[in-house]
Amino acid sequence: MTDSGAHALDASAIQALIRPESIAVIGATADANKLNGRPLHYLRRDGYRGRIYPVNPNREEVIGFKCYPDVESLPEAPQMAIVAVAARRAVAAIEALGRKGTRAAIVFGAGFGETGEDGRRLERQLLDTARETGIRVCGPNNLGVINAFDGVTATFSQYASEPPVAGPVAFASQSGAFGTGIAALARSRGVGFGYFVNTGNEADITSTEVLEQLLDDDRIEVAAAYLEGLKNPESLLRLAGKAIRLGKPLVLTKVGRKAAGVRAAASHTGALAGEDAVFDGIARQYGIVRARNEEHMLDLVSAFTACAPPRGPRVAIVTQSGGAAALMADRAEELGLEVPVLGEDTQARLRATIPPFGIPGNPVDLTAQFIAEPAVLTKSVEIALSDPGIDIAVIWFQLMHAFADELIDVLLELKRSVRKPFVVCWLAAPEAAVARLRGEGIFVSGATERAIDAIAGLHAYGEALRRLRGTTRPVSGATRPDGVGAARPLPTVAARHLLSGAGIPLVDAELAADADAAAVIAARLGLPAVVKIESPDIPHKSETDGVRLGLASTDEVRAAAADVLAAASRHRGDARIDGVVVQPMAGPGTELVMGVRRDPVFGPVAMLGLGGVFVEMLKDVAFARAPLMREDVPSMIESLESRAVLRGARGRPAVDMESLTDILVALSRFAVDRPEIVEIDLNPVVAGPDGLTAVDWLVLSTEPRRVDGTPREEG
Amino acid sequence: MTDSGAHALDASAIQALIRPESIAVIGATADANKLNGRPLHYLRRDGYRGRIYPVNPNREEVIGFKCYPDVESLPEAPQMAIVAVAARRAVAAIEALGRKGTRAAIVFGAGFGETGEDGRRLERQLLDTARETGIRVCGPNNLGVINAFDGVTATFSQYASEPPVAGPVAFASQSGAFGTGIAALARSRGVGFGYFVNTGNEADITSTEVLEQLLDDDRIEVAAAYLEGLKNPESLLRLAGKAIRLGKPLVLTKVGRKAAGVRAAASHTGALAGEDAVFDGIARQYGIVRARNEEHMLDLVSAFTACAPPRGPRVAIVTQSGGAAALMADRAEELGLEVPVLGEDTQARLRATIPPFGIPGNPVDLTAQFIAEPAVLTKSVEIALSDPGIDIAVIWFQLMHAFADELIDVLLELKRSVRKPFVVCWLAAPEAAVARLRGEGIFVSGATERAIDAIAGLHAYGEALRRLRGTTRPVSGATRPDGVGAARPLPTVAARHLLSGAGIPLVDAELAADADAAAVIAARLGLPAVVKIESPDIPHKSETDGVRLGLASTDEVRAAAADVLAAASRHRGDARIDGVVVQPMAGPGTELVMGVRRDPVFGPVAMLGLGGVFVEMLKDVAFARAPLMREDVPSMIESLESRAVLRGARGRPAVDMESLTDILVALSRFAVDRPEIVEIDLNPVVAGPDGLTAVDWLVLSTEPRRVDGTPREEG
Repeated sequence: MTDSGAHALDASAIQALIRPESIAVIGATADANKLNGRPLHYLRRDGYRGRIYPVNPNREEVIGFKCYPDVESLPEAPQMAIVAVAARRAVAAIEALGRKGTRAAIVFGAGFGETGEDGRRLERQLLDTARETGIRVCGPNNLGVINAFDGVTATFSQYASEPPVAGPVAFASQSGAFGTGIAALARSRGVGFGYFVNTGNEADITSTEVLEQLLDDDRIEVAAAYLEGLKNPESLLRLAGKAIRLGKPLVLTKVGRKAAGVRAAASHTGALAGEDAVFDGIARQYGIVRARNEEHMLDLVSAFTACAPPRGPRVAIVTQSGGAAALMADRAEELGLEVPVLGEDTQARLRATIPPFGIPGNPVDLTAQFIAEPAVLTKSVEIALSDPGIDIAVIWFQLMHAFADELIDVLLELKRSVRKPFVVCWLAAPEAAVARLRGEGIFVSGATERAIDAIAGLHAYGEALRRLRGTTRPVSGATRPDGVGAARPLPTVAARHLLSGAGIPLVDAELAADADAAAVIAARLGLPAVVKIESPDIPHKSETDGVRLGLASTDEVRAAAADVLAAASRHRGDARIDGVVVQPMAGPGTELVMGVRRDPVFGPVAMLGLGGVFVEMLKDVAFARAPLMREDVPSMIESLESRAVLRGARGRPAVDMESLTDILVALSRFAVDRPEIVEIDLNPVVAGPDGLTAVDWLVLSTEPRRVDGTPREEG
Repeated sequence: MTDSGAHALDASAIQALIRPESIAVIGATADANKLNGRPLHYLRRDGYRGRIYPVNPNREEVIGFKCYPDVESLPEAPQMAIVAVAARRAVAAIEALGRKGTRAAIVFGAGFGETGEDGRRLERQLLDTARETGIRVCGPNNLGVINAFDGVTATFSQYASEPPVAGPVAFASQSGAFGTGIAALARSRGVGFGYFVNTGNEADITSTEVLEQLLDDDRIEVAAAYLEGLKNPESLLRLAGKAIRLGKPLVLTKVGRKAAGVRAAASHTGALAGEDAVFDGIARQYGIVRARNEEHMLDLVSAFTACAPPRGPRVAIVTQSGGAAALMADRAEELGLEVPVLGEDTQARLRATIPPFGIPGNPVDLTAQFIAEPAVLTKSVEIALSDPGIDIAVIWFQLMHAFADELIDVLLELKRSVRKPFVVCWLAAPEAAVARLRGEGIFVSGATERAIDAIAGLHAYGEALRRLRGTTRPVSGATRPDGVGAARPLPTVAARHLLSGAGIPLVDAELAADADAAAVIAARLGLPAVVKIESPDIPHKSETDGVRLGLASTDEVRAAAADVLAAASRHRGDARIDGVVVQPMAGPGTELVMGVRRDPVFGPVAMLGLGGVFVEMLKDVAFARAPLMREDVPSMIESLESRAVLRGARGRPAVDMESLTDILVALSRFAVDRPEIVEIDLNPVVAGPDGLTAVDWLVLSTEPRRVDGTPREEG
């Protein structure tokens, strides 16, 4: 469904889900303690103004609403329906609703894909029925949706046991229980969820698809989601692009960072898990702010609703406690933020403002003097933020129950007087003061490091906006892997031909059928040379002692070629042996690893890392989705632990970033254009004084015969 | 002050500070809003039963207490005094109190060491006066101390504006404002601070010294501190040792993890900052649990007061939410915990207990069924914990306002019925329920990942207890560096002699005065050989092209020696050149870095790391304080990112751990025995098939003449 007609249809179905003019409740009952009773009570309580149709053959009315015996008897096609019947009866209900003309339905029932083969069969049946009759399904195995602006409390979530409070955040969750917990925490912090959508098993409608629609609502400033797996990655990428275009931050928490979490998530949703490092790279590439957990998510969401992103990473810390200041400075540095010493002028102005025992550097320590004289705080923050070397400030204090009103006045005055953003960290604060400040659009953290974490999120988003706004990302075609199972390595020379044609610089390589031919080729390509066994049955050449480096003469080449051919026959008598590949030996340089692979979720992705232990032991690689824009490469590098080496740390020459970008972009385009290519590994690419050159490569393809290799190789 | 008499004297002074039978307040006033007024009000409010003596020449009485004009007029020597006068008058007050016989005084005033040279002078004067007259000083620049058991609220901290609540935690903080915030947060979580001690500038009494005494109180179960720098590292180490002996966890938050935090801490306390990696290593070595920040500290403190440490790292996750479970599983793996699949038997028993849509693996997903049937929760946790492969459980749910009482009953029943520890994570919980559970000794986290962080802390402490209990750590002598400034490198052969005598295996090395001598030596030591320039003026040999490796014949050795000698003269005509060092070339193997250095805080520390980028780029090294016990080495290795390589990952042979331990222990003993040795670097030590051998070394000493080197070298 990528054509715009289908997409517009989807949009109107999602609108029906979240902003219906009429709602039917299939299986409605009057008991507010039952999950099929709660939605009616909530809809009435929260002033839903559309038409409500309980459906239940055993009742005439339910809590004052006229009740209908079946879907067919309804006076109109309800725009949306809540299907609150057992799993085995849900398919029939969806069929009846679809035929009636209902656009969207929420299916509460559990017992579908999350429970094993029988459940998966039932879920497929549900989806087939929905597709056939043109209705879209939210769920199954979910708690429903809430549109707090319009009183659409179409849920049995405990969160709705108190009336939802509308606000500028659209929130979607695959998990019902965790989503409920997050929504309740948000309410207790005064963060209003304008929309709450639980998508459960996502048989049809996904969280990202709903958020895509919700972003269009002018009352929504931030989108947030809790994800376990991605059933519709294209929708996530569309959502991310739209969020950047509209300047509305998208905050995601996704589990599956580690094997244990992947296993846990898979066991209860059956969702497909791609590699977490790939998700992480694509999130960065698309300007998605990833939150570690529910606390971090709510901190970021609150910060985004209150604060503009800073223009850079430079933080001023203004505090009554040197201790807290030191903790924040530590955290800032850990997160790649800066706490620069303030300019001479700024320090002089601060010195004239703060008490004699205060410290005007950065952190700025006001001591407790500002309690007696609140203007000290106001002025100090103004002065610190006026420094051209500062982008954002954090103000820290604790308790102050006796002076809360004065402090609130100071902070509100600052909110009016300063142009740069600031956040507040107030430990053990009076609850009313925090509520008041949050209500006035000031971000208040109750934990010292978390205030800095929020600044890091604001900065990351600002950086993404600067990088991505105004760019147009090319849309790639199919993202699913093509028959990965059948992939085989291409012969070395054929692979070289293919990659070279795609613009990748590689060292020369030719196939020699025997030792004498190898010597002749080496003389032509240049010495010293490298000889490697060539066999489709020996993917790991070192297994059979199949590689010889630094061969200084044609005699050495001949002897080495004879050796590796003999060793291969000895170790693997059954293998087809094509000969040996001869290459000139590469010069010295920094060794990189570059490549593309097909992620099961996102399709072709490009990979970059520094060679050696960084890849082998530390898995320090960065991913981005193909095709890459040139702008994507600096942030890939930024995310590497080993970035300093690439930039020329410790006396090494810096890697040529233009060439590196050329290669990554070319690889990524190639992978998009050639869906039969499953994986390319250039390992290593040597970045030397004469630029970058791949000296070893592996290309896995599902169609080795289609490759335009040299005829000799294809035999 | 290491002799036991002095130590006993200190103990009684600290007892006077925290448990005084009489208290004088110097500069007392009646105004409860002033810092010199609050303590009297608080002492009266909190029922302090000792004798109280306000001292103020301008008053006859203060809030009902008879007031004295000066210290001399007091009817007895007060055991403790609060000096609440300006900095410049504090020295006179301390002198008078010391002469009167007062044991300990709190000096509130700011304007001492934290404010510059004048202040530092005043602080030294204060300390000299105290030492002269035998009184111990807490502060200056602090908020005072609280002993909540005995109503000793000797503070002007805002925390005491409500009466302190006694409990099993002894807390000390160098920072007043941050300490106050932490104490207030603890109260709001129901964590009772039996003692609260703010030590400010620590001119005399340190946080760790006070905690050492407080640990003896049977009512104290956990000690916690916020530190910015260590003025008395011996006291920290004694405290840590005592905490392990008594089985009372010690939780520390220390800033200065990064350069920015170090600068921030230094600017406001002037405290000496050692290297953070050294502090981290020593904390691990001594069984101190390090908390990242105030939230983490309070989570750990709460967990320790409620939970026994688990016997191992294996966690069962029991939950109503697969999403939260996946997040917890991710976090557990990140922190080195395990979430093992439950045994077949356990799964079968669970399957018979939980509802059909539940999942019996691990995480155990109960769905929401346990709300209707609380026994499902009780039984599931009992079954999961009965699995011999499980050490601890975490139980997760959210909201449940309507079922809070049932859940409380379940958890209290579990607390009685299970022997293994468990923690609870309850999102958006009813406040009363959390308070009740905490009161009953159950740890409740309000955030998903933080529940796992707490388990990791419990496990780390359990591991430290198993490792350290029953061991006796050798006490080393001086820990301060001896004249580091004057240190010079020893000649290579002299250094080899010294290290070899200490039991370190090193490759052969001899000095050759000229090229011919080099060839003769190489023939004797074995080929291939290495030649290096030897000059006290060329510490970095590669600068002058001064190293040649892999010399295969005596001719090559001769030529190489002539080359490096000529190059040295050419590059550094002014240098004294002693000749070349000749060594046999080392075989292949895993390259390690080992050494000792003198930390400015802790004195001699041993260092271990994997060579190459792990040390150069990633600073992946582990420290422990010398002298090492053999038991210290495994946890050093455990803390390395590169530990898998040492253990033989990816087909490499494992490093011989016995030999590695021998060398580290020998190095550490040597550093303790020879205070003139400032630094030893063995880089690399090659771990090959024949064991470990150092192939390059550097020894810095303040007394190069005292070294027992070969005569030839000493010329």
